Amino acid sequence: MTDSHSLPHAVGIDFGGTSIKPALVQGKTVITHGATINPQGRTAAQTLDAMEAAIRVLCADLPSLVPVGIGLPGFVDSENGVVHGLSNVTGWTEVPVSQILSERLKVPVILENDANAMAYGEWLYGAAANTRNAVCITLGTGVGGALILEGKLYRGSQLAAGELGHTSIDLNGRMGPYGNKGCLEAYVGNHPISTRALAAYREAGIPAPSTECTPLDLTGAARKGCPVALGIWKSIGNELGAAFANIVWILNPDVIVVGGGVAKAGDLLFPHIEDSLKSRTSSVINSQLRIVPATLGNDAGAIGCAALALAAAKP
Amino acid sequence: MTDSHSLPHAVGIDFGGTSIKPALVQGKTVITHGATINPQGRTAAQTLDAMEAAIRVLCADLPSLVPVGIGLPGFVDSENGVVHGLSNVTGWTEVPVSQILSERLKVPVILENDANAMAYGEWLYGAAANTRNAVCITLGTGVGGALILEGKLYRGSQLAAGELGHTSIDLNGRMGPYGNKGCLEAYVGNHPISTRALAAYREAGIPAPSTECTPLDLTGAARKGCPVALGIWKSIGNELGAAFANIVWILNPDVIVVGGGVAKAGDLLFPHIEDSLKSRTSSVINSQLRIVPATLGNDAGAIGCAALALAAAKP
Repeated sequence: MTDSHSLPHAVGIDFGGTSIKPALVQGKTVITHGATINPQGRTAAQTLDAMEAAIRVLCADLPSLVPVGIGLPGFVDSENGVVHGLSNVTGWTEVPVSQILSERLKVPVILENDANAMAYGEWLYGAAANTRNAVCITLGTGVGGALILEGKLYRGSQLAAGELGHTSIDLNGRMGPYGNKGCLEAYVGNHPISTRALAAYREAGIPAPSTECTPLDLTGAARKGCPVALGIWKSIGNELGAAFANIVWILNPDVIVVGGGVAKAGDLLFPHIEDSLKSRTSSVINSQLRIVPATLGNDAGAIGCAALALAAAKP
Repeated sequence: MTDSHSLPHAVGIDFGGTSIKPALVQGKTVITHGATINPQGRTAAQTLDAMEAAIRVLCADLPSLVPVGIGLPGFVDSENGVVHGLSNVTGWTEVPVSQILSERLKVPVILENDANAMAYGEWLYGAAANTRNAVCITLGTGVGGALILEGKLYRGSQLAAGELGHTSIDLNGRMGPYGNKGCLEAYVGNHPISTRALAAYREAGIPAPSTECTPLDLTGAARKGCPVALGIWKSIGNELGAAFANIVWILNPDVIVVGGGVAKAGDLLFPHIEDSLKSRTSSVINSQLRIVPATLGNDAGAIGCAALALAAAKP
């Protein structure tokens, strides 16, 4: 067992659409959470200034500044450290973030897609530790994913691999954002879950647990035995199992890590995913496969970013 | 341009269910095709004797025996050189082929799944040359596949990756061999193509081009303008495009190589695949993707096996 106090420090920054969370990290441990920064209403230059200041504050008690890793929600060139564009933040078109910050701080600064950073954290220190091939999927408003293959983050030829939420479970099914019929996210994203749950409650003539009918509401209702909520989780498990079966036939991984809010449904959801997946795959590839919830929680991104920064900084 | 005469020799053996084809290979060139061996009606031991003899004959004019690669249709442990079982040949349960033949021949002998061997050949010397990430699919009675990721054959955790024919395009669709509903092979394998074509001809009240209605028959009919045959190819292209879209969202490869008999439909099929794929994916991942027919033909397996044998024999 490595003593985490002997590990090198790095700064990991989880760059969200409304909240940028910098943290000083050592191994799998977040030593200090820095103050959050809201990128909305700031220019990219202003946000970069605030990030630089936050990094300096986090490293104030260290002998020197340490490598920095930043996970961003959008289209990121991790090889050259350039943000092509962000999903929910304007003004971040073709910004050479790594160059700008590394020139100011004189330390390596690496960028990564946020789903990749979280997956790397889970693979190195979390639910996918000690595996060779891991698939990570995050279930929230959007459904994202990332792949660790042969012990390395697999990014694909245009750095766009791992978009598991856009794979289709029905070639003539619900429409996704790219015209992709049967798009998984159109079934198991937070909004479609609410919409279909509300419809199911109406149809059953049972009052919904709330007007929003969020995944959390549905978990609560299902725990009280509500057949409508239980049925929704079963459907979602069936659909996720179908999508996972495709991933498994293609990649034959050791583990599928499921993160995000929907994963909190836990035992209401996971057995249905496993039943569906088993009914759709051969025993050779499903007998040793594990489907597990993510374990690093909200810190996965920062931990993964810090680890990627240290890996990149190695001579 | 490398002069192929300066490249080292290797023996590549394409082990088919009724015909084992050994060849002496140099780079992408088959120097000599050896006599074929029929494994049916022979024990594994007898077949191994025949293979040993064939290898010695192929190398008779060389200064010494050369490394041997064997591609087999079935479940093969390529790391340890053991055949767990073959798809259409009995008596090949847990046979340590590499050990047996390398002890007799005193040269390295490697085994590989046949789809992997073909893909490796196409990646090194054929339709996927000079790419980093290539997906290969073979359309025949069965639908097989293989992945080259980051310049290496990707085999998966139980050496069972790349089973593209078993991925689903419809979670409630046609049943595949493992209970996998919507199994691609149940739509675009040779037998389902014939069955659905015959049904379409009946429904249209048009005589089918033959009682078998093979892919080749359908290609001939479509070239003469038959609307039923043209429609079948369009449907197959749509379905393949849906399956390819999933692969592309997951892996973001440079190229998808399509081999096997169905690929011979050429321009009757490929534009429909591309239309379907484009309608289901984002431009970031489809704009630089190429979908191309395999180019090494029947020699792909032998060429790939020989190249894998040489790669494994390197000190």
